[in-house]
Amino acid sequence: MVPVFLINKEKCLKNIRAMTEKARDQNIVLRPHFKTHQLREVGDWFREEGVNQCTVSSVDMGIFFSKHGWDDITIAFPVNVLEIDKINVLAEKVKLQLLVESVDAASFLSKNLHYHADILVKIDVGTHRTGIDPNRTDIIDQILAVLEESALLSFRGFLSHAGHTYKARGTAEIKAIYDETSAHLIRLKSRYINTYPDLIISYGDTPSCSKVKDLSSLDEIRPGNFVYYDVMQYQIGSCDLDQIAVCVECPVVAIHPDRNELVIYGGAIHFSKDRIILDNQMEMYGMVVEHQNDLWGVPVPSALLVRLSQEHGIVTMNKNALSGIKIGDTVKILPIHSCLTAHQLLQHTKII
Amino acid sequence: MVPVFLINKEKCLKNIRAMTEKARDQNIVLRPHFKTHQLREVGDWFREEGVNQCTVSSVDMGIFFSKHGWDDITIAFPVNVLEIDKINVLAEKVKLQLLVESVDAASFLSKNLHYHADILVKIDVGTHRTGIDPNRTDIIDQILAVLEESALLSFRGFLSHAGHTYKARGTAEIKAIYDETSAHLIRLKSRYINTYPDLIISYGDTPSCSKVKDLSSLDEIRPGNFVYYDVMQYQIGSCDLDQIAVCVECPVVAIHPDRNELVIYGGAIHFSKDRIILDNQMEMYGMVVEHQNDLWGVPVPSALLVRLSQEHGIVTMNKNALSGIKIGDTVKILPIHSCLTAHQLLQHTKII
Repeated sequence: MVPVFLINKEKCLKNIRAMTEKARDQNIVLRPHFKTHQLREVGDWFREEGVNQCTVSSVDMGIFFSKHGWDDITIAFPVNVLEIDKINVLAEKVKLQLLVESVDAASFLSKNLHYHADILVKIDVGTHRTGIDPNRTDIIDQILAVLEESALLSFRGFLSHAGHTYKARGTAEIKAIYDETSAHLIRLKSRYINTYPDLIISYGDTPSCSKVKDLSSLDEIRPGNFVYYDVMQYQIGSCDLDQIAVCVECPVVAIHPDRNELVIYGGAIHFSKDRIILDNQMEMYGMVVEHQNDLWGVPVPSALLVRLSQEHGIVTMNKNALSGIKIGDTVKILPIHSCLTAHQLLQHTKII
Repeated sequence: MVPVFLINKEKCLKNIRAMTEKARDQNIVLRPHFKTHQLREVGDWFREEGVNQCTVSSVDMGIFFSKHGWDDITIAFPVNVLEIDKINVLAEKVKLQLLVESVDAASFLSKNLHYHADILVKIDVGTHRTGIDPNRTDIIDQILAVLEESALLSFRGFLSHAGHTYKARGTAEIKAIYDETSAHLIRLKSRYINTYPDLIISYGDTPSCSKVKDLSSLDEIRPGNFVYYDVMQYQIGSCDLDQIAVCVECPVVAIHPDRNELVIYGGAIHFSKDRIILDNQMEMYGMVVEHQNDLWGVPVPSALLVRLSQEHGIVTMNKNALSGIKIGDTVKILPIHSCLTAHQLLQHTKII
């Protein structure tokens, strides 16, 4: 065997149900981000819970899910004008929402898109990655003016991703960021609702959607990671360890008792290089968990994936645990960032 | 367009020729590591320069190159006993060298490998990733005893990878590490050469093979990265910027003049997350270079890829350079670690 990405279906379904129920209870739309899993099967699990709309991060991912029956898709990435041909193909086929954050992009679409699309204006609520400063209503107004002149583009609302909740630790900090960032969207909604009575505000990020109890000021949420969760979300406080629905099973290829290490087949090309810096300044790329038949159990104390090269991973483990392992065994490891690890192992996925 | 990995064939050929000539002049075998490129075409360029043996980092990669005419392959990764079926398929087809660093792995192969294979014993020359401490000749002797009893396994020699040259800066530091680490292999060769007159010592790593003038104590070298080089090798001092033979071309999707940033379609799933920490503690994931028709020129001053999320990259750039860029343009970026970036973009490669 080679490194395999294991998906615990039961845990995934629990995570999906918790989020769909939360959205239903608060009367908001759940449009889950499918970049986390990129799998037809996991999409189907959402559909079985009544979810009929999804978010993707690329045109190609939109085309993939459109082929699997998804016909209401938001591409939550600033529109890449160099993919206009594929965007046209997709817009002909599905109800498509595109993300715009500049007059240039809006103008380009008004000239080059041949089918209808809804336009979401991306607002920077403090992450400073993409989006318009919420105070720059002058730019928003210019974009809306371009959309008004277009027969095919409709203004749908404002979209944000509060990526800086990833720096929070615990519900109180997550809630504080949520309150501050969602306020920007709520203010924009008040400003424009009279002119656009159907406009929505759409908000992402797994920490907020998992831990903030009252999301009812929003119209739509787009969390993605929660379907799997991971060690980073556990560190943030978005989930319990027990909610993490995926792990990577890796062959043991060498054992070094003299330095309490074992070498696994499982490296940067399998896990990706997202990491957590521990209190002692060590880097961690994953947490080893106990075997439990085909699934896995609790973490093995102090057993961590601490270094990665292209194909090698180095696991540190105490002598006692290490003494029970031989070459040809496997270890199971909870990933730091499940979205990236899932992407790396798309061709080596096993649903249990 | 989506992010594309551009390969400058002329620069690759120069890099290949420099290394093949060096090996020929010193009468040592060049067995290039193909994990860097994983491409049939680049393999062919080596063959045209008279190279008929290669190194790979996985059984699957060995199978891939065996299908493209390579019949003398070293898998430079501790043998993964859980892939024995595929190893048997490969061993039947090609002259195969396998890496062993424990009695358990040697015993497993002696029982389960049904075709001939050469065995290289992996020696840890100080990187402390894999391999046997060069002083533990007791373990080496036990492995050799297992091989002696096997009709199908032949001891071929000792193999090392001095991965810690990646921490060196400049030729003097690279040379110092080379002298210390190669001495371990040379000592082992002296010890065992009488019993095994054909044994070889095989040594890897691009910094040593690029910058140490006299490699003639070795029998074989296995550098891989040198075919492309990258910003990390430039920082180490293995190459000039002009020798870097690959870059990633990425669409510009958003521009933020207020913070001297632009957003590209090009993220962790395209570049991988290997990075360099700059003197000012900023992280760098790539260097922006000037366009030059289909190819690229010198770096744009202070224009760096400084943050990556799954699909987004953030490039910082001074106002002057930024003012010349609009949405729908592309930027070209030299990768930090070309092996990982090449792997991520294998399906989106363009040879120029």
